[in-house]
Amino acid sequence: MAPGILSPDKTHSTNVLSSSLKEESGIKSQRNKEHELVLKTFRLLISDLCQQFNGGHPGGAIGMAAIGIALWKYVMRYAPLQPEFFNRDRFVLSNGHTCLFQYTFLHLTGYRDMTMDQLKSYHSKRWDSICPGHPEIEIEGIEVTTGPLGQGVANAVGLAMATKNLAATYNLPGFDIVSNHTWCMIGDACLQEGVALEAISFAGHLKLNNLTIIYDNNQITCDGSVDLTNTEDVNAKMMACGWDVIDVEDGCYDIDGIVAALERARASADKPTFINVRTIIGLDSSVAGQAEAHGAAFGADDVKRMKRSYGFNEDEYFVVGDEVRQFFSDLPSRGEQIVSQWNDLVKKYADAHPLLAEEFQRRRSGKLPSDWKTLIPSPDKFPDKPLATRASSGLMINPLAKAINSFMVGTADLSPSVHMAWDGKQDFQHPNLRTACGINGSYAGRYIHYGVREHAMCAISNGMAAFAPGTFIPITSSFFMFYLYAAPAVRMGALQRLKVIHAATHDTIGMGEDGPTHQPIELAALFRSMPNLLYIRPADSEETAGAWIAAIEAQDASSIISTSRHKVPQLKQTRRDGVAKGAYVIQEDDDAQLTLIGVGAELSHVLDAAVVLRETKGIRCRVVSFPCQRLFESQSLDYKRNTLRRHRNIPAVVVEPYAPNGWERYADASISVRRFGHSLPGPEAYKYFGFDVDSIVSKVSDYWMRISQDEILRREFVDL
Amino acid sequence: MAPGILSPDKTHSTNVLSSSLKEESGIKSQRNKEHELVLKTFRLLISDLCQQFNGGHPGGAIGMAAIGIALWKYVMRYAPLQPEFFNRDRFVLSNGHTCLFQYTFLHLTGYRDMTMDQLKSYHSKRWDSICPGHPEIEIEGIEVTTGPLGQGVANAVGLAMATKNLAATYNLPGFDIVSNHTWCMIGDACLQEGVALEAISFAGHLKLNNLTIIYDNNQITCDGSVDLTNTEDVNAKMMACGWDVIDVEDGCYDIDGIVAALERARASADKPTFINVRTIIGLDSSVAGQAEAHGAAFGADDVKRMKRSYGFNEDEYFVVGDEVRQFFSDLPSRGEQIVSQWNDLVKKYADAHPLLAEEFQRRRSGKLPSDWKTLIPSPDKFPDKPLATRASSGLMINPLAKAINSFMVGTADLSPSVHMAWDGKQDFQHPNLRTACGINGSYAGRYIHYGVREHAMCAISNGMAAFAPGTFIPITSSFFMFYLYAAPAVRMGALQRLKVIHAATHDTIGMGEDGPTHQPIELAALFRSMPNLLYIRPADSEETAGAWIAAIEAQDASSIISTSRHKVPQLKQTRRDGVAKGAYVIQEDDDAQLTLIGVGAELSHVLDAAVVLRETKGIRCRVVSFPCQRLFESQSLDYKRNTLRRHRNIPAVVVEPYAPNGWERYADASISVRRFGHSLPGPEAYKYFGFDVDSIVSKVSDYWMRISQDEILRREFVDL
Repeated sequence: MAPGILSPDKTHSTNVLSSSLKEESGIKSQRNKEHELVLKTFRLLISDLCQQFNGGHPGGAIGMAAIGIALWKYVMRYAPLQPEFFNRDRFVLSNGHTCLFQYTFLHLTGYRDMTMDQLKSYHSKRWDSICPGHPEIEIEGIEVTTGPLGQGVANAVGLAMATKNLAATYNLPGFDIVSNHTWCMIGDACLQEGVALEAISFAGHLKLNNLTIIYDNNQITCDGSVDLTNTEDVNAKMMACGWDVIDVEDGCYDIDGIVAALERARASADKPTFINVRTIIGLDSSVAGQAEAHGAAFGADDVKRMKRSYGFNEDEYFVVGDEVRQFFSDLPSRGEQIVSQWNDLVKKYADAHPLLAEEFQRRRSGKLPSDWKTLIPSPDKFPDKPLATRASSGLMINPLAKAINSFMVGTADLSPSVHMAWDGKQDFQHPNLRTACGINGSYAGRYIHYGVREHAMCAISNGMAAFAPGTFIPITSSFFMFYLYAAPAVRMGALQRLKVIHAATHDTIGMGEDGPTHQPIELAALFRSMPNLLYIRPADSEETAGAWIAAIEAQDASSIISTSRHKVPQLKQTRRDGVAKGAYVIQEDDDAQLTLIGVGAELSHVLDAAVVLRETKGIRCRVVSFPCQRLFESQSLDYKRNTLRRHRNIPAVVVEPYAPNGWERYADASISVRRFGHSLPGPEAYKYFGFDVDSIVSKVSDYWMRISQDEILRREFVDL
Repeated sequence: MAPGILSPDKTHSTNVLSSSLKEESGIKSQRNKEHELVLKTFRLLISDLCQQFNGGHPGGAIGMAAIGIALWKYVMRYAPLQPEFFNRDRFVLSNGHTCLFQYTFLHLTGYRDMTMDQLKSYHSKRWDSICPGHPEIEIEGIEVTTGPLGQGVANAVGLAMATKNLAATYNLPGFDIVSNHTWCMIGDACLQEGVALEAISFAGHLKLNNLTIIYDNNQITCDGSVDLTNTEDVNAKMMACGWDVIDVEDGCYDIDGIVAALERARASADKPTFINVRTIIGLDSSVAGQAEAHGAAFGADDVKRMKRSYGFNEDEYFVVGDEVRQFFSDLPSRGEQIVSQWNDLVKKYADAHPLLAEEFQRRRSGKLPSDWKTLIPSPDKFPDKPLATRASSGLMINPLAKAINSFMVGTADLSPSVHMAWDGKQDFQHPNLRTACGINGSYAGRYIHYGVREHAMCAISNGMAAFAPGTFIPITSSFFMFYLYAAPAVRMGALQRLKVIHAATHDTIGMGEDGPTHQPIELAALFRSMPNLLYIRPADSEETAGAWIAAIEAQDASSIISTSRHKVPQLKQTRRDGVAKGAYVIQEDDDAQLTLIGVGAELSHVLDAAVVLRETKGIRCRVVSFPCQRLFESQSLDYKRNTLRRHRNIPAVVVEPYAPNGWERYADASISVRRFGHSLPGPEAYKYFGFDVDSIVSKVSDYWMRISQDEILRREFVDL
């Protein structure tokens, strides 16, 4: 017998729920006949939608048809006419390429925007289509944008954590005002991606019984049989990770069996549930069960053949008959009823618990307490001594995170280094957890030990942020270098314009001894060019205050606040409102010959160098502090010109120990690093790479001499 | 009982090997006394080395002392005086922060470079230290650079695959000329990282019985007890992934038990082995068993106390007594014997199988057959029709990969899309694998189905490349977007200057319907700024030939060859030797008013736009093809100036549907994309974002008009 999940080892006592339609074919009930018609209609509709522009992903959607009926008709609690109903079940399609599955059920169940006309825009030339190649959060009924595999699993964990936290914070006896379940659909591929494996392990640890993964187990990926690449015992692996496992043998037809499994999952006492549903990709097409069913239309002839074999008219397209419409017709009104019952409950809750209800209402509306900014210390509260900007980061955000329960703050196992834990913080943990350290867990806790799982941390945070706009502001933290592990999730957060704030410490070569594997030379170029993301490098406590304010005030953007491991001086000239503009003149000189651009932890070196240049070389430099390129870009042309003064032919030199890529827009020369780093104590690393004050002075004065002698050099970007 | 691995579930029938030293304390043998002395010496040496500069990671190294003795003294086959001995066992320290563990054993076992003076340079100001904060491949005795957690696990899988492939290719009855084992040391954190989990699953699938993971199970990470974040049943999970599991209960002292476990692992019939060794972090320090032992020196007083309790002189430092020196003194000569036996075997092999031996010798010397370049088609062999550059990629590399067995070609489940499979390719699989598709596996196969595991694919490829310089040239393939998942491994390959070539398809918005989740707007900025990495975007078949030649010829660099999903015309003016220079003039005009820079799939749009600009607007443009910034940077100043002509005051406009960051160095304006993409068919996406010929013409002529009227604009970078 071949290894793998097609042959589950019964000794692991998984639970097989099954009731085959086929066996009772002689006495099919009306309901089963309806199911059969809906299944056929759905499968042909998917086939037609892919056929019209000869592309798309039909196979998975078709294989999952019965799962969709079980979910949308029988199990999920939602309101098609009020897609944003707060206590709705969340559905995440982690195998996002099967998006037609979701679009079609949104259409059938009565979501207003998802018209048949829109469905037909899938893969069309319409730029205003709401049926893109992967589900996007902007579309009603879509909870998160998915596509890059595995992300959805972690998003779902975040959504389930959001529910747990709100429930633990606001639910009271008789008032389960937050009680929704999160359902996550995955394919074989999601189970191979590291980010999903991290999130699965973490969800098991947290005992998220309000989370269910539904595994579309068709044993096919692009390259063919899953056996080519993965022969592990998936059920046993899930159980080892702390999940309940339920098997459904006949996932193509056994709607009752799937419903039973889903209901049992919703009732799980203290574990997340993994439902392993065997399906057949591209069922009833001529490529059923094959990789060819995955990412291509079946061909016009084959779709016609399918229609004939189903008893449909082969020349009719996009057919949804009255019986099928009828079958789904109760869902909008059922949804309205669910919403109305919940509204009643919340009204009673408000009467009984007005203060809590008020806070709950504020958070539902996506707002922070109006005085939040006063919690961030003013300069007179800063320690009057050099401070690592990572410590400044804690100084700014700890009081906010402590006082305002919208903040969910986590770290990928670097609590002692990232300064994100506040006095008296309570951990987000299952209430029964008693660790070796004696920590009491609670889902009401808002400090999250993610383990060494950077990628899952950020993808989970996206899920929390997506629960409802502004209800949560998730904060992640790690060394800046390790945000490369998490970059796909940071990107997904930015793409979805989710307000997630990443506190990245130990930036540049200043972080020292850990060496080139930990020195993020080229990462700033990535995050500075990533749309909808603010990459902010503050220079001292004041700028760090500005960075946090900018990140929290940013509309529709994620942020990275990038801080130093080592202590930096408190500069007198820095301004938090300067950070909001991305760059600002920190030291003006109307007769300046050069502009020096300083950034983050090295700004103080630049200010010192400017003094030495004037005093010993007679070169007059103005200095610009430049914490965030994207914020600067959104300023007026006038502001930008007056800040940089390149229009007055004053050359600018940027000083930052990163790859210079992108600075060429703002400067004429750079003191930068174009190789990997080196393991040395921070101050030595600065010297070794030429970022100490002496080196800066010597390079800048040399540059000034060269451009004085060579006009052409002025037209080229120069690496000093 | 608390959950987790501290309480392994015996029903899983793991195998506990244990022989406690402590029980037989009355009748300690001489050998056990020696062990005790060595253990104490080692632990104090680590403590001293961290204490001298008051930093570093002592705890893990100290906890792993007995494991080190078992490995270096009793089990591993290596030659301290010939660190590059081809058939040596490979040791990977995936928990790289414990680097002192490895440095110290290299010192004790007689590696020449690793002097006591060098050991003492750990965390010092010495820029020429060979004891950096994490192990680096350039140091003798270090197989791969590690540090970012989890990478080493995947590297070890690659090293073990390299052995399997060479053994299957060259070993013959009586001639096991490649027979080494790979040992990978990990900590709790590695088991939480997605990249490790992907690699573990894949290694189990491949049944790599020549691979052993040794788990330093001290249940501590930076944040405290592992129970805070991870309560899965690790042993059960590993078994579900197809690994043998062996427990060692007393990993701090039980050297015999560890040796027995390691030897059993080496003898494993058909599975990789996971040895779960319970240890105590920072044993015998005052912070033993605590997170505080992880990343800080213990303090001078505590080290003195440890010395006293061990019976050492508290005022002596870095003490390695004669008995300890004696204990390790046999290893250099034992190593020489191993090498000499192997050399004899290889000599006999050469007599018996001269042709195979010659090839084996060539590969050991890191060379390709001298005529390899003739296998790449010349232009007259190209199809005379538009071709996607991903198809051109296959056209160039398939004949090479088929003919030359240095190439190990893999894909993260995108075989039908990436064109890397050649006619008659054989898969790298365990010989017993019979898949549903009827594929016969063999370790001699060189096409690797990695599954949907992009990150592990690239990290495993690093391991194969690190086996011996040039013996393998690993090729990976996926959509360009998914190299963001793999970016930490791509980075580690570049950092180690490993020749790994990444075939990235579906670049830019031209990839179309899959939408913004799959359109890599900002990724080029990352990889163009990553040191030691060539990011090459060829424009047609000829440039794709040039890209592969450049990647294969690159000394000490990894490469990404970035290709289009859609068909592009075969351009007459492209030149493979132009690609080698990074950029070249493809259409000269001595009277040009503007330079247009075209890249990759959009170069043809630029060439067409240049014609239209001249004919309809009277604007004369020269055109530069610019496939690789890093290759261009290494050209002479003259070549660079003559290519771009900005020194002659000719403004340049770059056209590329990516974030422009970095192009500002070479151009004065860009037609680029500064937001996320959009799901549209490729040609529509080009139109939507303004990259069709008409849009380019209109934007360039508008720019020309603006700079003709506004001198200041010439000094600023402009986004068109």
